[in-house]
Amino acid sequence: MNVPDVCQLASAEAAILMARLDALGQCAQEPGRITRPYATPALARARDLVAGWMQAAGMSTRVDAVGNLIGRYAGKAGATQTLVTGSHIDSVRDAGRYDGPLGALVPISCVERLHRGGRRLPFSIEIVAFVDEEGLRFRSSFLGSSVYAGTFNDAELALVDSDGTSLADAIRGFGGDPDALAAAARDPNDLIGYIEVHIEQGPILDAAGEPLGIVTSIQGQSRGTFTLSGVAGHAGTVPTHLRRDALAGAAAIVLAIEAVARETDALVATVGQITVEPGAANVIPARATLTYDVRHSSDAVREGSLTDIRERAAVIAHDRGLILTYGAPSSMAAVPCDLALQDRLVEAVGALGLPTRRLASGAGHDAMSLAQITPVAILFVRCAGGISHNPDESIRTDDAALAIGALSGFLERLATDTPLAPRETAA
Amino acid sequence: MNVPDVCQLASAEAAILMARLDALGQCAQEPGRITRPYATPALARARDLVAGWMQAAGMSTRVDAVGNLIGRYAGKAGATQTLVTGSHIDSVRDAGRYDGPLGALVPISCVERLHRGGRRLPFSIEIVAFVDEEGLRFRSSFLGSSVYAGTFNDAELALVDSDGTSLADAIRGFGGDPDALAAAARDPNDLIGYIEVHIEQGPILDAAGEPLGIVTSIQGQSRGTFTLSGVAGHAGTVPTHLRRDALAGAAAIVLAIEAVARETDALVATVGQITVEPGAANVIPARATLTYDVRHSSDAVREGSLTDIRERAAVIAHDRGLILTYGAPSSMAAVPCDLALQDRLVEAVGALGLPTRRLASGAGHDAMSLAQITPVAILFVRCAGGISHNPDESIRTDDAALAIGALSGFLERLATDTPLAPRETAA
Repeated sequence: MNVPDVCQLASAEAAILMARLDALGQCAQEPGRITRPYATPALARARDLVAGWMQAAGMSTRVDAVGNLIGRYAGKAGATQTLVTGSHIDSVRDAGRYDGPLGALVPISCVERLHRGGRRLPFSIEIVAFVDEEGLRFRSSFLGSSVYAGTFNDAELALVDSDGTSLADAIRGFGGDPDALAAAARDPNDLIGYIEVHIEQGPILDAAGEPLGIVTSIQGQSRGTFTLSGVAGHAGTVPTHLRRDALAGAAAIVLAIEAVARETDALVATVGQITVEPGAANVIPARATLTYDVRHSSDAVREGSLTDIRERAAVIAHDRGLILTYGAPSSMAAVPCDLALQDRLVEAVGALGLPTRRLASGAGHDAMSLAQITPVAILFVRCAGGISHNPDESIRTDDAALAIGALSGFLERLATDTPLAPRETAA
Repeated sequence: MNVPDVCQLASAEAAILMARLDALGQCAQEPGRITRPYATPALARARDLVAGWMQAAGMSTRVDAVGNLIGRYAGKAGATQTLVTGSHIDSVRDAGRYDGPLGALVPISCVERLHRGGRRLPFSIEIVAFVDEEGLRFRSSFLGSSVYAGTFNDAELALVDSDGTSLADAIRGFGGDPDALAAAARDPNDLIGYIEVHIEQGPILDAAGEPLGIVTSIQGQSRGTFTLSGVAGHAGTVPTHLRRDALAGAAAIVLAIEAVARETDALVATVGQITVEPGAANVIPARATLTYDVRHSSDAVREGSLTDIRERAAVIAHDRGLILTYGAPSSMAAVPCDLALQDRLVEAVGALGLPTRRLASGAGHDAMSLAQITPVAILFVRCAGGISHNPDESIRTDDAALAIGALSGFLERLATDTPLAPRETAA
């Protein structure tokens, strides 16, 4: 095959991939708006489409007890190990077409390439289309991948959706078995690792003009609230020096949180909500509550920054005569990506003549569940403006072609590292 | 009368006044909670009580077309002029006992003193219990005093309450006549002025340990909103330097508004409301709207400060890549109190051995309506902690006695200035 042939092939593969992503986008609860929660007819239609593409690529398919679709492309004779890849096919409300589905479909394109060439690798490939990552319907957490990884917490079966249906009943209604979730856990013994292709959902690659990136870790996260209590008063009658204005204190904390993020390399910190009481234009605020969301790939840096933020907030409250209280603190540790898998991805991306930027993932992904049982890697694909969870989410067809090429290169590199079982190679 | 007698008298007067204020507090729509809107049975009961006290003090009483209660204590023979005093007897929801009623009842105590001594002044005294200042039921503006001053706008007759009753119908149901409001306007030709006794509704006197204050003006006011528009984004994936966070910009403006207030003598500026979109803890805010309320007794200072605030806001928005828009601007000019009347008050307060602080009123009062037709003055009485519009509103009995003493002294001083009509003095 000469270079133009390769280009035409990649271009055709990418065109097919984009058409499939569009077709999945048609699987939605309402026309013209992608909303595809767990255990809905829309999700079942999407899963059926993906199963058909898997089968056409020479894969066997099955559905597990929670509804995850698992396609398997067996390795060559003697292959005892399995590489897992995939992503989720559910969506948030009014979603885009790429968050999740891209990672379920890029690997199918790669397997198609192998299948077309009649090739088998020295390991099997398992592509999983996870049925619920976003948790839109039940506010569940990584439902699909946690069942697959064996980390699902049975307590979540009691979660109810807005109609009062329990998660357990929804699993049954979707053809699954809530009593068989633990048994559905993937045996980790034959696993090489897990690789997930995902849109960046951030602006770094787009701003840098780079199509692909290699994820170093999924950032850890600290969340919670600060509440400031001061004294309400008449906006006209209380002089400035006698005020204890809760909102003014909260504003100073918003800026202090931003300052800590600016001063700390690669830290992100966000105040997304603020509420004020009594909340009248002519009343000095007595109380203000703000949320914080602080993330970094180093847990030590994140925790140190949070301490810094709390100290600055305490000084602000003290200086203003306000009472500061903390609410609902929670945190998740960072999940590092496997260095050897990262290096293979860097080689594969570099071989396409592309920059090989390594970056942290600020968003959570199914790889967080899989990291509990096997080494993980994530390949980021640039998305326009970093926009995600939005109908305007978009990627370039050229970048889709590059993602297929990079994942294929990754598989080829892994193949050179993976020995067949001795008894089989001897056969 | 020797000094102990005077003290005992003042103490008894104040005890009666406080008991009357408590009795008015019992006139409410629901037990245990003072809510006394316009044209309700609770307000009618309160007005009947006040009328009885006026009559017991030797005053004639009448009710005008909107329901204001007007008590008159005629001056001595030959008196051609009238001093008006009073305040409102309606209330906000879940109010205190003093905002309004104090100004209707302190003058009755003063007239009782005159009546007890069989004294007439060289001017008549008219005490008005205005039936609606707070506008709780119809969101009307100084309804009672605007009818009395002849500044009522007939367009307000179409206002409806939460049950759909129009103001016009409510006036009729209260025994009034919506078609006779213009005719109910007080002829200003015989007026000397208007003096209103009112709780400060702010903390200045309480913080200074001073019972009474003389108001220099009712502050002018500018209100409106700032809206900042940035770009929403994922709290984990958008690096700090690529963010255009609308809330962070809004926080900087909140602090800039506070800074302008701190830098400008006697300016007060308040941000009482702030809203954020989309308002999720893990989404960078795309839009934030904040209210401002800026007040000063000098219109030039207030307008200059608002310009300063707008300029600082524009710089903040520009530096952060945010779009700034202005909403719903409105303003009211300051209302100055009459200097000669202020001086009489200062003399009367000083004669009681008290400090004679002059201060601006940050809240609006019925005096704003009366200022359209006659010189006005306001005597402030200290309220605990500056708390108002709240069941915790409280004043000291001793301060009530001092208010009676100060207003009586004011009347005596005014009496020395006021000649009788020449033809009468000749008789």
